[in-house]
Amino acid sequence: MKRYEMIADEVSSLIDQGVLGAGERLLSVRKMSMSKGVSISTVLQAYLLLEQKGLIISRPQSGYYVANISRLSPVKPLVTRPRLQSTAVDIGELVFELMTATKNRSFSPLGSPFPSPELYPLKKLNQYTHAISDYYSPWESIAALTPGNEALRMQIVKRYVQHGYSISLEDVTITSGALEAIRLSLQAVCQPGDTVIVESPCVYAILQGIELLGLKVIEMTTSSADGVDIGLLAKVIGQNRIAACLLMPNFQNPLGSLMPDDKKQAIVELLAKHDIPLIEDDVCQELYFGSKRPKSTKYFDKKGLVLHCSSFSKSLAPGYQVGWVIAGKFQNKVNQLKCMSTLVTPSLLQKTIADYLTHENYDRHLRKLRHSLAIQQAQAVHLIDRYFPKETVITKPKGGYTLWLKLPKSFNTLDLFYQALEKKIIIAPGCLFSARDYYNDCLRINYGYAIDNHYKQAIKTLSLLLKK
Amino acid sequence: MKRYEMIADEVSSLIDQGVLGAGERLLSVRKMSMSKGVSISTVLQAYLLLEQKGLIISRPQSGYYVANISRLSPVKPLVTRPRLQSTAVDIGELVFELMTATKNRSFSPLGSPFPSPELYPLKKLNQYTHAISDYYSPWESIAALTPGNEALRMQIVKRYVQHGYSISLEDVTITSGALEAIRLSLQAVCQPGDTVIVESPCVYAILQGIELLGLKVIEMTTSSADGVDIGLLAKVIGQNRIAACLLMPNFQNPLGSLMPDDKKQAIVELLAKHDIPLIEDDVCQELYFGSKRPKSTKYFDKKGLVLHCSSFSKSLAPGYQVGWVIAGKFQNKVNQLKCMSTLVTPSLLQKTIADYLTHENYDRHLRKLRHSLAIQQAQAVHLIDRYFPKETVITKPKGGYTLWLKLPKSFNTLDLFYQALEKKIIIAPGCLFSARDYYNDCLRINYGYAIDNHYKQAIKTLSLLLKK
Repeated sequence: MKRYEMIADEVSSLIDQGVLGAGERLLSVRKMSMSKGVSISTVLQAYLLLEQKGLIISRPQSGYYVANISRLSPVKPLVTRPRLQSTAVDIGELVFELMTATKNRSFSPLGSPFPSPELYPLKKLNQYTHAISDYYSPWESIAALTPGNEALRMQIVKRYVQHGYSISLEDVTITSGALEAIRLSLQAVCQPGDTVIVESPCVYAILQGIELLGLKVIEMTTSSADGVDIGLLAKVIGQNRIAACLLMPNFQNPLGSLMPDDKKQAIVELLAKHDIPLIEDDVCQELYFGSKRPKSTKYFDKKGLVLHCSSFSKSLAPGYQVGWVIAGKFQNKVNQLKCMSTLVTPSLLQKTIADYLTHENYDRHLRKLRHSLAIQQAQAVHLIDRYFPKETVITKPKGGYTLWLKLPKSFNTLDLFYQALEKKIIIAPGCLFSARDYYNDCLRINYGYAIDNHYKQAIKTLSLLLKK
Repeated sequence: MKRYEMIADEVSSLIDQGVLGAGERLLSVRKMSMSKGVSISTVLQAYLLLEQKGLIISRPQSGYYVANISRLSPVKPLVTRPRLQSTAVDIGELVFELMTATKNRSFSPLGSPFPSPELYPLKKLNQYTHAISDYYSPWESIAALTPGNEALRMQIVKRYVQHGYSISLEDVTITSGALEAIRLSLQAVCQPGDTVIVESPCVYAILQGIELLGLKVIEMTTSSADGVDIGLLAKVIGQNRIAACLLMPNFQNPLGSLMPDDKKQAIVELLAKHDIPLIEDDVCQELYFGSKRPKSTKYFDKKGLVLHCSSFSKSLAPGYQVGWVIAGKFQNKVNQLKCMSTLVTPSLLQKTIADYLTHENYDRHLRKLRHSLAIQQAQAVHLIDRYFPKETVITKPKGGYTLWLKLPKSFNTLDLFYQALEKKIIIAPGCLFSARDYYNDCLRINYGYAIDNHYKQAIKTLSLLLKK
């Protein structure tokens, strides 16, 4: 391709993408020649070519303008990576593919990492944002700096106190979601080279987050009923230098396991005996289906060794990325790290949530949310039970929004992922949940979306793919 | 202290903090006894003590309530760490102290890391937030997932294209501020153990960010006139395995140096020859005082080796934490990492900025902003020149919002920091800008705030402290 063709190509692709809109003026020939380091005549050739293609028009004494054409479709294929059966899977790429597919609403989001946003009172939240934006002062952004908006922290503390936790205002640091809270916690208690224990399976974002900090990971046997194997845990921490445990005792993602409260206490005490910090991912605590709210391990923490991480993303405000960490004796360190991680969690969103919690009935919303999720779980389990191969094992968690399925050994869920994607269905294959290829016959199914005909059809289609 | 006194103490501190407000019901005696694992009578003793102190009242058949007292002042001393001259300085702690002081508006923010929020069109932005919040759909949060809101990315690309850059839509990933953009870039091109070159002095958040990823750092000689020493750079990369260079060619923080465009090109070419990625921190590009907009190194990038990081925090929307990265051949990797870092940059804020850029005259705002900063710089330099010790060296950057001062050797700016803090003045001591104790006689002064009487008084007070 010649230089003028390359320039024409570049401009044409900007027009396709809509970056250069109809009627917009192009760079002058002189400016373009300077910026591309080519001669005036090369640019003239490029512009001529674009004119011939009908993409731009020239106006004497004025310059070149984008023609008023109907835009070419900017839609790109969703799956850009060819499926190379023989090479190792790039999990990061796979996660990104899954996320990209999730953005497309014509796809069935059975593998989505989030519950449906329609389950949340976003209209109500909007009303508070709306009200705040009228009197929002430039100084709010500074007031929202670490440890975060005081009204929001107060509301958070209130809930803990209501449930009997010993938490006070200075114990809470606002973060940009639970993922940041977990990363800050890891940074607060680990040095590169250290080893961290996690449950297995475990979501890839966390496994990858640990690896990116230069930490090593031990994946620990975990039951879908009551969580991590405490006997094994005791053995492993007796034999290895462990810098931290990262557990999700309430509705573990993806297994859905709920650790009984007395087991939580036992684990806190075991780790305390060895002086090992426990990073608790507790984003699903409010999503229990039983009559009793499960406790957090933080409740049993006497030595300040539990770094309790949570957020509003799964309980109230998806996409706001407002989370928090209660880090015990590491709070000061976490505060310092937050200043260097994302500086500040946007004040407007912190205030919106604080106002909602102050003026609305959060618990009523939560009851409704839990009710919807419980019903949807029953519906999803029923469907899978009906259509999937007989030998399929299905978890039935007591809360949360995901099921974990184990297919007969002969099935590979990564293959199923690509086949399903062609049918516009997203699933989360088991390989996303381990650094060691453990769960190739497993998959995670999200029931946080309405179990409508679309969803039913997706389950049926998956079962047909499995029959092949 | 007895158990009932401890419980009383805890409740009393929650009342002080305002977590439990006047008229609010306390946990019932039974619930409190369960949650604390103490007897009913211990709780009764605690509540009696609180009643005697007038903090709570009991209502027969109903329970215990917080009394309607005027709240105790929740103000804590700002500087909680005693100054221990003999121990090594904990820089993380120092940064947090500085941030905490910055939140207090009665302090003179000469050491603040941000320009005054009053320089920005936050009212205008509020209007767009206000309008969006009316029709904000629950699905927006999903549409905003990596690489980010399309309208915003389009506006960003438009500006680059207008200035002759070869950038298109898929080259841009939205991040939660420039700090996240830089961290993702480091993660995309480095492995733990690798070495990164930075300018010296360099802001602590970046030095610390590098260290937290398990990376090593080489601090490179840098001139306040034209940036990093290119001869030395060539020598160092010839002799060491360097994983990346992280530079701020436009108005380097804290030095204020502006690298001439031809030097930028030379550096891009030098690094390309060695196949070394260049991470460019370009958050101050729009803050130039001259007649010509300086270029980014990205402009000269032919091999896709420049990871260009920027944000709206210094140019348009402080506190929004909306940034972006144009990562060349590492874009795909950066997208993957973003999914695992903070998942999504809040959609509402992305849309607000996109709408502002679409409908408002951003360049007019920028002209006004630059004009204010240029005038404030002249005023600040004049004041410092008049009051500070004669031998003080003052940089006069051609843009940005910070001055770098070098005092005579006998002065220690960390001492000055603590002395100034007592006078309610914040400065940024030199030790914040190196991992190696290089700049103990330097300080950074922020002129991004109005040079009013308060500011003048602060400069005078500093000069008096220096005379002591």
